[in-house]
Amino acid sequence: MAAERLVVIGGDAGGMSAASQARRRRGPEDLEIVAIERGRYTSYSACGIPYFIGGAVTSTNELIARAPEVFEKDYAIGVRLHREAVAVDLDARRVTTVELGPGGSGRTIEEPFDQLVVATGAVPNRPALPGAGARGVFGVQTLDDGVAMDAYIEDRRPARAVVVGGGYVGLELAEALVAHDIAVTLVDRAAHPMTSLDPEMGAMVAGALREIGVRVLLEEQVRGFEERDGEVTAVVTRERTIPAELVVLGLGVRPDVRLAAGAGLEIGPSGGIAVDRRMRTSAPGVWAAGDCVQSLHRVSQRPVSIALGTHANKQGRVAGINIGGGYATFPGVVGTAVTKVCGLEVARTGLSSAEADAAGFRYTTAAVESTTRAGYYPGSQPITVKLIAERGAGRLLGGQIVGREGAAKRVDVLATAIWNGMTAEEVLSLDLGYAPPFSPVWDPVLVAARKAAEQV
Amino acid sequence: MAAERLVVIGGDAGGMSAASQARRRRGPEDLEIVAIERGRYTSYSACGIPYFIGGAVTSTNELIARAPEVFEKDYAIGVRLHREAVAVDLDARRVTTVELGPGGSGRTIEEPFDQLVVATGAVPNRPALPGAGARGVFGVQTLDDGVAMDAYIEDRRPARAVVVGGGYVGLELAEALVAHDIAVTLVDRAAHPMTSLDPEMGAMVAGALREIGVRVLLEEQVRGFEERDGEVTAVVTRERTIPAELVVLGLGVRPDVRLAAGAGLEIGPSGGIAVDRRMRTSAPGVWAAGDCVQSLHRVSQRPVSIALGTHANKQGRVAGINIGGGYATFPGVVGTAVTKVCGLEVARTGLSSAEADAAGFRYTTAAVESTTRAGYYPGSQPITVKLIAERGAGRLLGGQIVGREGAAKRVDVLATAIWNGMTAEEVLSLDLGYAPPFSPVWDPVLVAARKAAEQV
Repeated sequence: MAAERLVVIGGDAGGMSAASQARRRRGPEDLEIVAIERGRYTSYSACGIPYFIGGAVTSTNELIARAPEVFEKDYAIGVRLHREAVAVDLDARRVTTVELGPGGSGRTIEEPFDQLVVATGAVPNRPALPGAGARGVFGVQTLDDGVAMDAYIEDRRPARAVVVGGGYVGLELAEALVAHDIAVTLVDRAAHPMTSLDPEMGAMVAGALREIGVRVLLEEQVRGFEERDGEVTAVVTRERTIPAELVVLGLGVRPDVRLAAGAGLEIGPSGGIAVDRRMRTSAPGVWAAGDCVQSLHRVSQRPVSIALGTHANKQGRVAGINIGGGYATFPGVVGTAVTKVCGLEVARTGLSSAEADAAGFRYTTAAVESTTRAGYYPGSQPITVKLIAERGAGRLLGGQIVGREGAAKRVDVLATAIWNGMTAEEVLSLDLGYAPPFSPVWDPVLVAARKAAEQV
Repeated sequence: MAAERLVVIGGDAGGMSAASQARRRRGPEDLEIVAIERGRYTSYSACGIPYFIGGAVTSTNELIARAPEVFEKDYAIGVRLHREAVAVDLDARRVTTVELGPGGSGRTIEEPFDQLVVATGAVPNRPALPGAGARGVFGVQTLDDGVAMDAYIEDRRPARAVVVGGGYVGLELAEALVAHDIAVTLVDRAAHPMTSLDPEMGAMVAGALREIGVRVLLEEQVRGFEERDGEVTAVVTRERTIPAELVVLGLGVRPDVRLAAGAGLEIGPSGGIAVDRRMRTSAPGVWAAGDCVQSLHRVSQRPVSIALGTHANKQGRVAGINIGGGYATFPGVVGTAVTKVCGLEVARTGLSSAEADAAGFRYTTAAVESTTRAGYYPGSQPITVKLIAERGAGRLLGGQIVGREGAAKRVDVLATAIWNGMTAEEVLSLDLGYAPPFSPVWDPVLVAARKAAEQV
């Protein structure tokens, strides 16, 4: 028997990164590792679901980074699929789990632990609206959701779909459904899609959606769903009734802290599990990682919960190294996000204008239009960069990019600059790569910084 | 008459940026501005010449950022084309210039100044080899060089070409000549092309050249050129004679400091004009900018001379703001460079292994292979990232990237990280943009940083 037993709740990015890293540092004789996963997959890319639905990715297998057998065989990590953790007793050091289908007995199994990683992920926001349980209404949180939606499309060939919610996943799915020749309506209660962007940047995204034929209804709230024989037939808003055989709910997610809260772990103001930089929760020997935790936003210095695989992987790695006896920290986030929708590349980092307002900053904004390559180089594409800089000090608070091929990943320079607290004046001096196939002689990011520096 | 007179020597990026910025801050009644340019163009993109030769850019007009008339009309800057500055008298505050052809009289004209900007650019390295003056032997320094080479190709339809020198411009031109169905041989005395890369990264570039049919001869030195009737017929190395009707010399450039040195301005150890952070030379009221100056390398803390339009523009801007009564500084470079050759994207920043050795660093290197997008996302391309990190401290010293579409501009994150003195451990935590069309969940740059962090 191993000296210690580690139980990981949640077999996706955060949990399995923690498990793998712990294993790298402690062998099976020293540390037994068991991962509890409710579904039937481990370590998959939920972010890939829209591309599976759209057909760019042909099989869900491609979305699975590492299968359970790999963890079992190569890492000596016991993976318990179709097993739901329903309670954690911190004093007794055990997790109560239930066997689920297929073929699940409903049997209760106790899993004792010395160390515990809570990686329960996020739970989709699902308003309690009449008809929300009808067939044809889908979330897009898990790979199973994606598989179910894909099968439904294949089977029913819906002619009309409504996507509720204009966040990243909602927009990506709207485009994916257009690829199936489905007439798509996007309904969002906000004034523009992607509310993490400033209004005029979000408006460009709405324009791109309309260009490919998506009907975009803004400032419109869904009140319920009509159904016939248990199947959805329409989406009802205050303004109208929109016929649809398929409804996708993309209303965002929140940390799934039900288990953690039940166990008495401290939940932070952002709604995520409170952790320190080493990913320790409020209870000794209990760690947390992934979409269920709260992170420090390095610009606002406030706690935030951002559900993103890249954070989950890093946080899991940090927890695993620490469990393994090493030392690692997760120093926070700056809110970077990118997506590609309707050929438009969209990116943001740091604070939006609204977020800067909320955080109490005085700031100036500078937006510039430029090109992704030298203007004369073939394939040069338009790009708009908007920066938000603190008045006086000139510190960069946020950046947003909307453009075509080659635009979005430029946000990484801004993310790195913001991470380091650089001012607009410092950013404009940066030695970025220049050659005609990659950039005008002044990179668009530098042009924006130059404009911001002149204003602060 | 204006209160002061500013003379700018050199009508390209550095000089005209300085002139424009000075004008923005001081009107014509306050500051008369005259720019002296030897050639017939102002503000053109020399970096675009290979794409003009290759046919991707169809007219040299596209390479001209701003024509002389625009400066005259919109900026009230007097532009004197076909005018060569031959001497500067700092005490008498005047530049001696000569009128060149076409229609040039050879007449001498004195240009008095209160303030002077020296922006004389770079001069190509041209070994004094027998036959180097033959027709068919071209440099690629100026737009006129490009125009002449293009006309020669059109006229003579050379079947065979030799490119001497495996730097950025040499490689870009080799590819451009292949596009003309010319059989191209590249001769470089180094063991791999692009000596600013580490050997194994440079070897990938050599491989890409060979793939498109370029004959690559390494560690081979050119001893001269054979000619018949004044026209080149072959390139002679120690090892062989290579028949060629066209020879391109891409042997790099060095700062053109003849005028500055003659005037008694201090020349730095890198061979460029010594300037402070505000672009002031050793003489009061005399500024310098562009390829002719020396810059601080922020990693080695040593002076370097790097000929690159992006630096010239920034330096010119800084000089112009200061001349205009403002305050701006150029805080140095980190040696970033990118290029695209034979479909391969190549980038480097900071110090190479050889440069780190020369600067006395103890370091470790970490190279990783990854993909530009999520592995399952269509169009995902290979990318190799190599990092050089200081032992112990873990500070990032340099980075190199070789890959396909979407690879090279990732160097900007490394350049920004190096600029800020980040360690590999800090870099791996960066909040970079993640979405399947743009990156694996661990960006290749972060994977490399993670590996480096484990080694330092």
